[in-house]
Formats: sequence, structure tokens, C-alpha cells
Amino acid sequence: MEWVSGGVCAPQGFKAGGTHCGLKKGKSDLALIVSDVPAHAAATYTKNAVQAAPLHVSKRHLADGTLQAVIINSGNANACAPDGEQNALAMCEFTAKGLGIPADQVAVSSTGVIGVSMTPKIGLVQAGIEALTTKLSADASGSEAAAKAIMTTDLVQKEMAVKLTLGGKTVHIGAIAKGSGMIHPNMGTMLCFITTDAAIEKNLLTKALRRVVDHSYNRISVDGDTSTNDFCLILANGLAGNSEISTEDTDYIAFVEALTDLCIHLARTIAADGEGATHLITCEVNHAPDEETATEIARSVISSSLVKSAIFGKDANWGRILCAAGYAGVSFDPELVSISFVSEAGEVAVCKGGRGFPFDEDLAIKVLTPHEIVIRIDMAQGEAMSTCWGCDLTYDYVKINGDYRT
Amino acid sequence: MEWVSGGVCAPQGFKAGGTHCGLKKGKSDLALIVSDVPAHAAATYTKNAVQAAPLHVSKRHLADGTLQAVIINSGNANACAPDGEQNALAMCEFTAKGLGIPADQVAVSSTGVIGVSMTPKIGLVQAGIEALTTKLSADASGSEAAAKAIMTTDLVQKEMAVKLTLGGKTVHIGAIAKGSGMIHPNMGTMLCFITTDAAIEKNLLTKALRRVVDHSYNRISVDGDTSTNDFCLILANGLAGNSEISTEDTDYIAFVEALTDLCIHLARTIAADGEGATHLITCEVNHAPDEETATEIARSVISSSLVKSAIFGKDANWGRILCAAGYAGVSFDPELVSISFVSEAGEVAVCKGGRGFPFDEDLAIKVLTPHEIVIRIDMAQGEAMSTCWGCDLTYDYVKINGDYRT
Repeated sequence: MEWVSGGVCAPQGFKAGGTHCGLKKGKSDLALIVSDVPAHAAATYTKNAVQAAPLHVSKRHLADGTLQAVIINSGNANACAPDGEQNALAMCEFTAKGLGIPADQVAVSSTGVIGVSMTPKIGLVQAGIEALTTKLSADASGSEAAAKAIMTTDLVQKEMAVKLTLGGKTVHIGAIAKGSGMIHPNMGTMLCFITTDAAIEKNLLTKALRRVVDHSYNRISVDGDTSTNDFCLILANGLAGNSEISTEDTDYIAFVEALTDLCIHLARTIAADGEGATHLITCEVNHAPDEETATEIARSVISSSLVKSAIFGKDANWGRILCAAGYAGVSFDPELVSISFVSEAGEVAVCKGGRGFPFDEDLAIKVLTPHEIVIRIDMAQGEAMSTCWGCDLTYDYVKINGDYRT
Repeated sequence: MEWVSGGVCAPQGFKAGGTHCGLKKGKSDLALIVSDVPAHAAATYTKNAVQAAPLHVSKRHLADGTLQAVIINSGNANACAPDGEQNALAMCEFTAKGLGIPADQVAVSSTGVIGVSMTPKIGLVQAGIEALTTKLSADASGSEAAAKAIMTTDLVQKEMAVKLTLGGKTVHIGAIAKGSGMIHPNMGTMLCFITTDAAIEKNLLTKALRRVVDHSYNRISVDGDTSTNDFCLILANGLAGNSEISTEDTDYIAFVEALTDLCIHLARTIAADGEGATHLITCEVNHAPDEETATEIARSVISSSLVKSAIFGKDANWGRILCAAGYAGVSFDPELVSISFVSEAGEVAVCKGGRGFPFDEDLAIKVLTPHEIVIRIDMAQGEAMSTCWGCDLTYDYVKINGDYRT
């Protein structure tokens, strides 16, 4: 597996683009990704009881497991809004018309403010989509434009691609992603659109995506369970010419591994670009009785406002970490747990066997200074491990979210 | 029922006091509450898998359902610390010696930094306890001194008392409480010590306390499930002379009602005094299918960092409220839900039937300006209701928690 440029346009037979239609002031707000041929498609959706209209429409259009395009807007979540379904469907229809394909071959996704009707601006959206269908690009510039158009409070554009060899054929997987409001699980909108030219059977594609999302996006401190609009979509158009993956053979395993690496990379980028964040926090839990226990503890730690505030303040307050592990809802023996902080500046052990012991405070501050901080928890009660990613809680998070809408 | 002064000293036969022993710099850090006679005792403890040593010791001393005193220190949580059990037990023994009672009649509670050994300062603690046992007071000044000594990042001292009539006798219930780090459930240490001169049978006292805690402290955005040190203790010494409450009769109901009002008052005070808070947020959920659904939704809303940040910014961002309801983990029909903001400045409806509609933004800012803000959610799908309390998320929360330990 090799990292390559090109994002969603790296795989053969995909075009993309982005434009400004007027949902946001002066910023790109409309993205389109299109496969030259109908592609196998799979998706994961938010588990929030309140789901945005575009998700309802996309689910219907994905029912047969194939899609050819996805249209995405930022600036309006089209959630809890009057005429939500009608406008989401209209976006698919405008796209289909411009591309000359059936409307049910188009998925739709939205991100932005909840509860605002799109109706007053649907004319702008229509004009934007019509223009966009004529200026798609099959090279890196198309993916870049699409990645830019789905950003909201993101500071960093998120795209990535890999290539690998399956059955002697070069296969690409590319993706663009978007994430904001990352400080706490269960709230920011997380979007990810993945393209691949791999040939893979529909049900296996769904199985692969679910597994990968569970090991990447569901392990950062914003997750698919909760925003009204979270959406992760993969399109596999088969143009790489590999013999279709139809069993869980070595090709399937290689595909899932590459897809996992790609998505973990993007998930980490989303966490690092959390609103107001100054640190990417990685929590590694080792020697756990099972993977679920390890994951729940890691997730609880990277979700704790007290831990996040402490990292912002370069405070090696490990008691808050053990406390967060304690309320993760899984049972374990705290008396066996050891904790250390690790970064490019070194490592400092702060807790052994569930107890504190004296450590060099100057070293701790040095270790907690670089951008990426690893909280390493050794449970000493098994062989399983898991990793979750988050970011620190800062003044700027409060600032950004105190006046997002107004 | 009538509100009275005197805190934990309002009931007959209770003395209290507070002093500075040296666990904190220059601040009062040791509190003691004593009943003249052995009292029936009941308690609720944190459900965190990591529990502080004082809780282990207190649980053992409460095993027979009676206690005569509780010693409390701030400045050190005595959690995850070497010699934790030994030092917690020593605190009971010092207290018992000073008072001339058995050590197993003393409960112990601690709050402060996790993971620091008390051993280097146990001599100071011993001297402090010895002095404190000789300067207890049966009037309001004793309760005040105790309330002050258990504060950490609290800005407001929390004590309250009520009187009511049971079987022709005047009965008092008094309490002191302490809470910090309120911004998010599951982290701050919540302590509450309640005294009453009511005569009530042990098992009924336990039942009453559990019910009351579930309707008060477990409905603010810091709860007993999670800190390593959370502790709510009630001592009932029977000196009011009412005939002992031994069945769930009208006296029991009146006692529970008074205790509930007292604890809700203190719970609201804790939420309002949340670290860095500028607003007390009350979330009322009405017309829910059942109380649990209403409670889970209210709790999810007051726990959402995005909702809390929006209230700080006076932003009527109701989409975040509906989103938080959506990820509360209970099922409901979002299409029936209406939301309004209410305060002493008025009311502004912002969402009807799950959809936004135009509202007066100037009125919304006016409504969101006073200290206490009510988020009223009408589910229109049943007859149950529930209320939870929290506070906004501010720059100062991050500041306080970025450098709490150092």
C-alpha cells in the first residue's frame, strides 16, 4: 500500500468538483463526485433519532446498492427544516439532469446549521449544481475543490488516497472528509466520501465499510452515532479491472486494511482539526481484557472535558484519566492500571498500579508541549488493545460555539 | 414546610465546625459534623469503578446503619493514592478519639486532587482534627464553617435547612453540599451531608435518600455515577421526638417531599456554581411518554457542550437541543417536539413540530440574558415530565481546568 495524491479522483473513472452557489457567504459550498459508470455503493449513517432529510433520501437511493454520484452542500444541514425532503430530492434531480443519469443514482448530503429551510435559496442551489456538472475534473484539482466545498468550521482540508495491488491490478482508494465540533463525541457533523476503482461485491463492500468505520471514525471524539447529518459513503466502480472481490480472501483483507489506514488517517486529521484544538490527543489502551473494554476506556478518556482541559493546560493530571476510565461503563481492576504520557519530546510515567508516584513535573510539561500527545494506559489485565483520538478543550472552542449561528 | 437558617445545625442535637489544617494553602480544609447521640445513617456513593479510599472506609462504618459523626477534608481526594485506606481510617480514629466515640461510628469523606498521598500531611490533619473536635458549634456558625471547609473551586457556600411538622412534632432537615466541575456530568466531586432530627427507621431512611438523590443530584450535570469521591450522607438522630417513621405513611411522604425540596435547591445551587458558569440552565421536558425518557432527554440537553456554549453566547440555537435529544438513547418522534426558551425576561418559541420557524432574534437575546435560562421541551407524546439542571460552558471553565492541579 502506498499513499498517493488525487483524493477522490485518484481512482480511475471518478470526477469531482466544487463551487460557490450562495448558501455560504463568498465561500465554496457545493461539492459533486461522479463515477463514469454506476458503482457499487455502501454507507453508514448517524444513529441519532433525529435524522436530516438528505439521509432519508440517500438511504432510498442506496437501496439497490448502486449509485453514480453524490451531491453535497455546506452552509445548511437541511435537518429539522420545512420542505427538507423535497429540497434534498430536488438536489438529486438537478444533479441527475445535469449529468444525464437517473435521480435515484444520486446520493445527497448536507452540513451546516440545523433548522433553516433551503427553500428560499433552492434556486441558487439549482444554478450552482447545473454549473458544477459542467466543470468537473478527473484530476487532483477536482478532489481539492470538492474537499474545500464541504468544510464548515474546519481549518484544514481533508483528502487522502492510497494505491495497492489486488490480483495483479493497481487499485486506488481515495476520500474526502469533513469534521467540525470535534471536542465532544456525539455532536459534530462528520462526512466522508470514499471512491475506489476496486471491483468488490456489494454486500462485502458494506461489510468492509462498517468494519472500517468502527475502527476509524467511531473512535474519534465525534462519531456517527449522533449528529443529525453524519454520513460516510463509498462508491466502488470496478474500473481497476481486478477480478471482483466476492469472498473474504486475501484481496478482501488487503482492501480492508488499506481502507482502514486511509480512514484512520482522515479520522486523526478530523480530531486534530477539532474546533479550537491545539493538541491531537491519542489514547492507547493496552493489555485490556477485550477490545470493547479497551475501546470504551479510550473513548471515555478522549471525551472527558477535564482531561481535554488539562492537556490544553499542559497539566499531567492523570487522576482525571483514571477517573474517566472508571466511568467508562466497563468493569476492570483499577489497581493494576499504569498511565504514561508520550510525545515526540519523550515519555513520562505518572501512575503505576492505580497509584500516583513522584514524577518530574518539568519533563511532564516538556512531553505535553508538542501538538500530538499520546495517553498510554496499560491495564495489565489481558491482551487486547484499542486506540481512540480526540483533541484538547480550549478557549477557542467556546468562542466558536458561542456564536456559530448568529 | 418552611425554609430556615442553620444548615446542618438546624436539627436538634447536631454540632458542626470547620478549620484550616494545612491541606490547602491558607484556606479552611477540614469539616466535622457530629450528632449528640448515635444516628440512623444512609448514604449513596459514586458508581465509578475507581472509588476513593474514604468511601471504602465509610461503607464499612455504615454497615450497621448507624453513625455519630462525619469528618471531611478538602485539598486532597485521597483517591488512587498510596496509603489511602490507612489515612482514611486514621482520620476516623483521630475524630473518634477527640469525641470519645468508637471509630466505626465515624464516616470520612475527601475532595481535591486525585493521586496525591496524604501521608506527608497526616500529622497536620491529626492536629487539625484534634483542635476541631474541641470547637464545634450547635448554631448556624458551626454549619457555615463546615460548609466553607468543604469548598474547592466552589464560589458559593452551599447550605440549607427546612422545618416541617410530623405527627405534631417540629422536625428539621439541614444540609451542606459542595460541587465543582459541573459543566459535564460524570466528573466533579459532589458531596452532600444532611442532618435531621426526625426519627425514621433505617431501611426507610435509605429508601428515602435514594429516591431523593435520584430526583435531585442525579439530575444535575455532575452526578453520583462518576467521580471517584461522590458521597451523599444523611444522619437522622431522632431527637425531634416524632414517633419513628416505620411505614410509607403520610409522615414518610412529607419527610421525602421536604428532603427532595431541600436537595433540589442545593442541586440547583451546585449547577449554578458550575466552574466558570454564567448561566443556570434548567431543561424541562413535558408530555413525554414516560419519566425515564423525559429525564434522559433533559440530561442529554444540559450535558451537551454545544448547547452549553450556545447559551453562553446567548444564541437560540435550538437545532443543537433537538440534536442532543436525538442522541439521548431513547426513542421518540422528533416531528412532534416543540422547544422554547424561557427566563424572567420572557419566552420565545423557536421550534414547533420538530421544525424551525421564524422568531424574533432580538427577543431571543433578551430572553437568554438573565442568569437562569429554562429550555422547555414539549414532546407532545405523553403525560410524563422531568427536569434537569446544568450550566453554560465558558472560557473560564477551560481556564480553571487547564491549570487546576499545577
